[in-house]
Amino acid sequence: MVKDLVNRPGAVDVDEILAFAIQLARDAGHMIREGQAGIFASQSTTQTKANAVDLVTEVDKAVEAFIFGRIRAAYPSHQFVGEETYDGQVITDEPTWIVDPIDGTTNFIHGYPMSATSIGFTVGGVPTVGVVYNPFLDMLKTRLPLSGRPRPLADLGQALISVDIGGSRRPSVLSSRLSTFEKLAGEPEYGGKMVHSLRTIGCASLNICQVASGGQDMHWEIGCWAWDVCAGLCILTEAGGAAFGGKHTALTGQVDTELLVGRKYLFVRDIAAGPGETRLKIQRRFATEFYDLTDNIEP
Amino acid sequence: MVKDLVNRPGAVDVDEILAFAIQLARDAGHMIREGQAGIFASQSTTQTKANAVDLVTEVDKAVEAFIFGRIRAAYPSHQFVGEETYDGQVITDEPTWIVDPIDGTTNFIHGYPMSATSIGFTVGGVPTVGVVYNPFLDMLKTRLPLSGRPRPLADLGQALISVDIGGSRRPSVLSSRLSTFEKLAGEPEYGGKMVHSLRTIGCASLNICQVASGGQDMHWEIGCWAWDVCAGLCILTEAGGAAFGGKHTALTGQVDTELLVGRKYLFVRDIAAGPGETRLKIQRRFATEFYDLTDNIEP
Repeated sequence: MVKDLVNRPGAVDVDEILAFAIQLARDAGHMIREGQAGIFASQSTTQTKANAVDLVTEVDKAVEAFIFGRIRAAYPSHQFVGEETYDGQVITDEPTWIVDPIDGTTNFIHGYPMSATSIGFTVGGVPTVGVVYNPFLDMLKTRLPLSGRPRPLADLGQALISVDIGGSRRPSVLSSRLSTFEKLAGEPEYGGKMVHSLRTIGCASLNICQVASGGQDMHWEIGCWAWDVCAGLCILTEAGGAAFGGKHTALTGQVDTELLVGRKYLFVRDIAAGPGETRLKIQRRFATEFYDLTDNIEP
Repeated sequence: MVKDLVNRPGAVDVDEILAFAIQLARDAGHMIREGQAGIFASQSTTQTKANAVDLVTEVDKAVEAFIFGRIRAAYPSHQFVGEETYDGQVITDEPTWIVDPIDGTTNFIHGYPMSATSIGFTVGGVPTVGVVYNPFLDMLKTRLPLSGRPRPLADLGQALISVDIGGSRRPSVLSSRLSTFEKLAGEPEYGGKMVHSLRTIGCASLNICQVASGGQDMHWEIGCWAWDVCAGLCILTEAGGAAFGGKHTALTGQVDTELLVGRKYLFVRDIAAGPGETRLKIQRRFATEFYDLTDNIEP
């Protein structure tokens, strides 16, 4: 279906959109760096946290307005969903830009260099073009293939998995997450999976890119939004990775609107297929094993 | 005391040592990148984990041998303590190189781009020169000042803190760590501090550099060795940060051999001093508040 929409004469030129999005991400990144410098300069003289958060919100809004303006000028007929201006829009089949101006806002506030501008584009409700740009490390990822041959993964105990402590800190939610971490990290004789280790960088789009490049085996996150994952999904699937969750109750691996808006995700890297197993079958096997350890946590 | 030893005619030229260590770290970084490429190429064809670990150990040893050889040739009278060849040497007052060829080995195995070569140098048992180089992000940190004016920190609830899940996964140790995470992250009405967030990248030297640059407020780690922290300690203290723990039972902030070999650390960034408070006093205040939350976990 996507192919039909993309190939419809005059409809969408994916290569052109990708080039446009890359330049846009770089320009937004420049604004983000400048914005942070301004906030830090003001923080040396003002002590209030509320003030800092206001300043961050201002930068966030300004960057989104800049991105929206450029898209509106270049593609006036396209739809736009942005974190800062979201008011419940439904993602339709129309060409739609789904944008997080600054993914990893907590990191941005602190000067922890793991924030990114995340620019995704859907056609027919399917993530089709994605650009993730970390302006602090000058790292840009696109939907182009990122890695060579995938490496094998013997079992979950060999995995490096990224997670997030999350924004909801109520005891019920927090303890569910920590209990999952315990089951993942603990020794097998006590029922744990003894994964190699857990990582937490607090930026969904960069975590998905890490899975895409094979530097993490999985990323698990609950509570993020379409603008956190849309660009990353394009990059991940292009690189052979799989995504599960969303509103799908089965592990279909289907990347569609149901996945995009479901707010619960498990991302799995491309894994070398053994004899008699397809790539998706291996990814589903690891996803099943992972989900067996998790409590059902609502966003 | 360090000044006396460093200023003793002909004893140690700190600027020369720093320049030497920077070039050494870059050359070691080149070996590390090549080594990883070799391992990943072999992993596409071999499935065994044991095999991968052997290959990593080989690269680790080869990089340390390379670093040791270069130091021995340039400074034949200096002592050397390296992770791969450590056999219980005591750190003396002699000029001593303390080196972790690859800090963040788990990350290195997985291709998670948070590994570093960590080259520290002590005189009189005190960390004096430090270079940390991440060859995957081409990020080099040295003992030179890294940041401008320090930012304030209102309270622990405003902090971004990095931690580590650790290598020991016995229930007693793991649950102590997770319980500390819970106290740090939980809502205040349930006794938590509700810190901004927790981060985990699994590389002590890079975590310390992050604290030095102000991008994290604190780093807490138990179980690391002198070669994990020596270089970072130079960079951190030069940037106004403080380190607590080691074998010190009091929060002295003293950076000496007792700190270096104690295997338990809390690193705190430079924090803008309010009226009537010295920098160290603020750092000790936050360290006290932090330690009140932690269980006594042995390395």
